[in-house]
Formats: sequence, structure tokens, C-alpha cells
Amino acid sequence: MSAVGQASLALGAALRDVAEEMDRQFDRLLAVPDDSRAELYQAMRHAAMGGGKRLRPLLVFATARLFGVDRACTARVALAVECIHVYSLIHDDLPSMDDDDTRRGKPTVHRMFDEATAVLAGDCLHALAFEVLAHEATHRDPFVRSELIAALAHASGPAGMAGGQMMDLKAESESFDLPAVTRLQAMKTGALIGFSVEAGAILGRLSHEGRRGLHGYAHDLGLAFQIADDILDATGDEASVGKKLRKDGEQGKETFLTLLGLERAREQAELLVAQAIEHLHGYGEEADLLRDIARFVLERDR
Amino acid sequence: MSAVGQASLALGAALRDVAEEMDRQFDRLLAVPDDSRAELYQAMRHAAMGGGKRLRPLLVFATARLFGVDRACTARVALAVECIHVYSLIHDDLPSMDDDDTRRGKPTVHRMFDEATAVLAGDCLHALAFEVLAHEATHRDPFVRSELIAALAHASGPAGMAGGQMMDLKAESESFDLPAVTRLQAMKTGALIGFSVEAGAILGRLSHEGRRGLHGYAHDLGLAFQIADDILDATGDEASVGKKLRKDGEQGKETFLTLLGLERAREQAELLVAQAIEHLHGYGEEADLLRDIARFVLERDR
Repeated sequence: MSAVGQASLALGAALRDVAEEMDRQFDRLLAVPDDSRAELYQAMRHAAMGGGKRLRPLLVFATARLFGVDRACTARVALAVECIHVYSLIHDDLPSMDDDDTRRGKPTVHRMFDEATAVLAGDCLHALAFEVLAHEATHRDPFVRSELIAALAHASGPAGMAGGQMMDLKAESESFDLPAVTRLQAMKTGALIGFSVEAGAILGRLSHEGRRGLHGYAHDLGLAFQIADDILDATGDEASVGKKLRKDGEQGKETFLTLLGLERAREQAELLVAQAIEHLHGYGEEADLLRDIARFVLERDR
Repeated sequence: MSAVGQASLALGAALRDVAEEMDRQFDRLLAVPDDSRAELYQAMRHAAMGGGKRLRPLLVFATARLFGVDRACTARVALAVECIHVYSLIHDDLPSMDDDDTRRGKPTVHRMFDEATAVLAGDCLHALAFEVLAHEATHRDPFVRSELIAALAHASGPAGMAGGQMMDLKAESESFDLPAVTRLQAMKTGALIGFSVEAGAILGRLSHEGRRGLHGYAHDLGLAFQIADDILDATGDEASVGKKLRKDGEQGKETFLTLLGLERAREQAELLVAQAIEHLHGYGEEADLLRDIARFVLERDR
């Protein structure tokens, strides 16, 4: 068996492990109460459980393992970042935003329940992310908890994910060039991917100096991920991706694909993945999972 | 001049001080960037600045002063709780939720801008609340920051404000009795009022034992506030309240007013205010502002 084949096996096992762990964590976090909030919790479970690549939690695990971080602590941080990611999907899918009917192969929350429940389910997952991080079970040192919270709030707020989503909405009516699209995507998807990698370093008590390589890895990975996403939107299969595709083209929105063309976009994504892996040169075999994740970003079909 | 007259003067001055402080804080937090997020920031400023009673920030200040907490720290916590309050108003006003056109005497965010901007402006203020708390300028001890964050996330999530809002939406179609309405309101408005009072105690490094009186004060104040709000909804003047009234009646929703009738509701609110003040018996003059706030809750016309 080739090295690549072995690597893919390891990645496949890790993806399955993390998916199971996240479903277990969400099952406990979102136990349905016996009162008029039952539907709210069912809506959160519908969105959060039984689907998704769990790329961000996987990045938290893959980085935390470099520093021998306790698995229970890592799982809580992975849960928090996935809470933020799922809340953003619920809100982005709303009729007033991207107006999507399908997500992860299931009806979106506002289609399955209603819009008010979708708004509140997103808001609740948003609050839960910070409640999970602030709990002492996440790390016994409150300085580490506080640093995680500051980083996640920054990555998900107006200077990160939500700010990038606002730019993305504007991109439908305004004309964006390559630097503008790069900045938009670095915020919209890059910031949370960056947090996922940084979280492992924060848990591992790495100095800011020591985080530089991981920071570079996350930056390049985030952009490669987004280019691959644009390519998938243009060339992928709706059934396996589990959501509506070809929306960027319909909306006349500038993306990496419209600006670069398919061939140059692919080349650029490959270059970014190579760069991401190069940033890990200071690490040995223990970073192979991070390297595999970078390669996987190009190969994925969903 | 009577003692009540003097007390009202002190409260009036405190309300003005806090209102100015909050506008200053929001002005700095929400400096408009020179990119395609400008409208997002303008939407947050529209909702957050130049209006509102600032009751929650005032409670943070009034409690923190009992323990001689640094004013700059207190102002940051007050800012965080008001971020959460304003985000909840923006989302509650959405067409899919309460569908309101006016708030604090101005058009609601989705009327002034659009729905997508309103969803994102709420999400951004939500994230900013936690970013403000996690910053070391809020308190040099990360344990205090972490405790504030855990308490605020709990108070605003599915076990608090957002959970109460879900119950409130269900109250339009289900029939709630007095205990159910009490629980709903203790979550929907009580939890964040409770946090505002608790925050001063956390900043003051009070033991859980020592917080008991303040906890009782906040609980009774929160319910009195909500009963007064129901009365205001039925009998108030739309122009001075600054939002649409008589909605509870139109929706056939059970409230303290429909369940108790106007006279008993007023008596109950007065009783709760007296109880709230009684909880402060361990404090001297330094708690007069908290006592004034409790009385003010009944007298306010907006």
C-alpha cells in the first residue's frame, strides 16, 4: 500500500472518530427539555447532529495532538467551534440571506421548522459555544479559557466570519477584484478555520512565536478550502454535496473561479496546499494528520 | 425637598450618566470601517446608540459601586450586557419573530436597512459582547473574566433569554398559566437583568454566599419590571414608549395582566418592588441607587 493510501486511511479513521465524538457531544449538550422549548432543541439537534464534514473540529483535534492536550478538553473546544459553524449555517440559509432549502442533505432549519425557530436556534448555539468554552471543564486555567473565548469571538464577529458574510452579500451587487475576494474569504471561512488550528496551540500553551507555522498553515488551508468550494459549486454533484449548487454563477457573484478560471483556480488551490504543508516543516510525523487534511481539501467531493 | 425627590434626582443623574457612557462606548466599539461592511456597522450603531433606558448597564454600575469596582472595568461589562440586549431586540423585531416597525422611537433595523443586515448586525453584537468580556481590560484576573462570560452566556442562551423568547412565541398558540408565564418571563427578561446585578458582584469578588441578597433583589426586580411592561403595553402611550403597543391583547397571549387583571397586577408589581428593596437590607446608603431603580421600574412611562 502506498504512503498516500495509508495517509488516507488514517484521515478516514480520524474523520469518523471526530464525527462520532461530535454527535455524542451535541447529544449531551442538546438534551431536549420537557417544556415549550422542545422544538427549539429539536431544531438545534436537526442542524448540529448526523452530518457535516466536521472539518473544524478535526483541525482542533489534529493540532491539539501535536502538544499532547487532554482529549476531553480538546473535544469541548471542538464542540464550541462547531456550535459557531452550525449557527452560521442556520442563519446563512435563512430566506433573507442565501435562501437555501437543503443543507447536509436535509431540509434547512427554517424549512423543517420555521424562520423564528431558525433565528433562535442559531442564537442559542452561538451562546452555547461561549458557555462551553467558559466552563472550567474546558481547561483548568482560566487564562487559557479566556484566550480561547477572545479568539473565537474575534474570529466569528464583524472582523471575521459575520463580517465576511456581510461582504459576501454585498458581492452580489458590487464588483469585487481578486484582493477583495481573497479578503472576504479569509474572513468568511478563513477566520474560523484559523481559530480551529489556533485553538490547539492555545490549549498546548504555545507562545505566539511558536504559533507562526500553524498560523501560516491555517491561512493557506482556508483559502485552498474556499477555492475548492467554489470549484465544487461549479462542477460538483448536488446529491453528494447535499446542498444547492451553481448559486454563485446565477447571482453573478465574483469568486475565485470567475476571476481565475477553472484551470488557474485548481493550480492556485494546489499551490496553497503545498504551501500549507511547507509551513509544517518544523513538525515530524505527529503533524501527518494536518498534512492529510490539507490534501483532502482538494480531493473532497462534498 | 423630600427624600423621594432627592432620590429621583440621583437616579435621573445616574440614568443620564450611563446613557452618555454607553453611547461613548458604542461609538468606539462600532467605528465604521471603510469597506463593504460599512452598512453592517451603521446598522449596529442605529440599534445600539442614542436611545433606550440603559436599565441593564445602570444595574451593572449600581451594583459594582457597592464594592468599589474600577469604573472602566464596570463600563466594559455594562457595554457587553447592552450588546446582548440590543442584539436580542434586533432579532426579536424581525418579521418572522415579533414583526415590529418601530423601536426606541426609530425604525427597526430590518426596516431601516434590510433583514439580512438585521440578522448579521444582531449576530455581530452577540459576538462582540463576549469579545469585550474576554479582553484583559475588562478585569486583570482571567478567572473573573471567565466567570462573567459563563454567566452571560448562560443568561442569554437557551436556559435564559433566548429560551424565554422561544416560550413567548409558543405562548401565542399554547395556553400558559401563571407559573408558566412567571417562568417564561424569569427567563426572557429576568435572566439578563439577573446577570446585570450579578456582574457587579462578580467584579467585586463577592462569594456565592454573599451574593444571595443581590440575587433575590434581581429576581423580584425582573418580575416587577415585566409586570410593569405588560401594564405599559396595555395602558401606555405609543409615542413616549417608542414602539408599537397592545400587541399582547391582539395576539391573545396570556400575560401577567390577562391572568391577574390590571389592579392585581399593579399590586403584585408593588409587592415585588418592596420585596426587592427588602433584599438589600444588609446594605446602607451605598445601595440607594438600586432601591431607586426598583421604584423607578413602576413609575416609568417608557
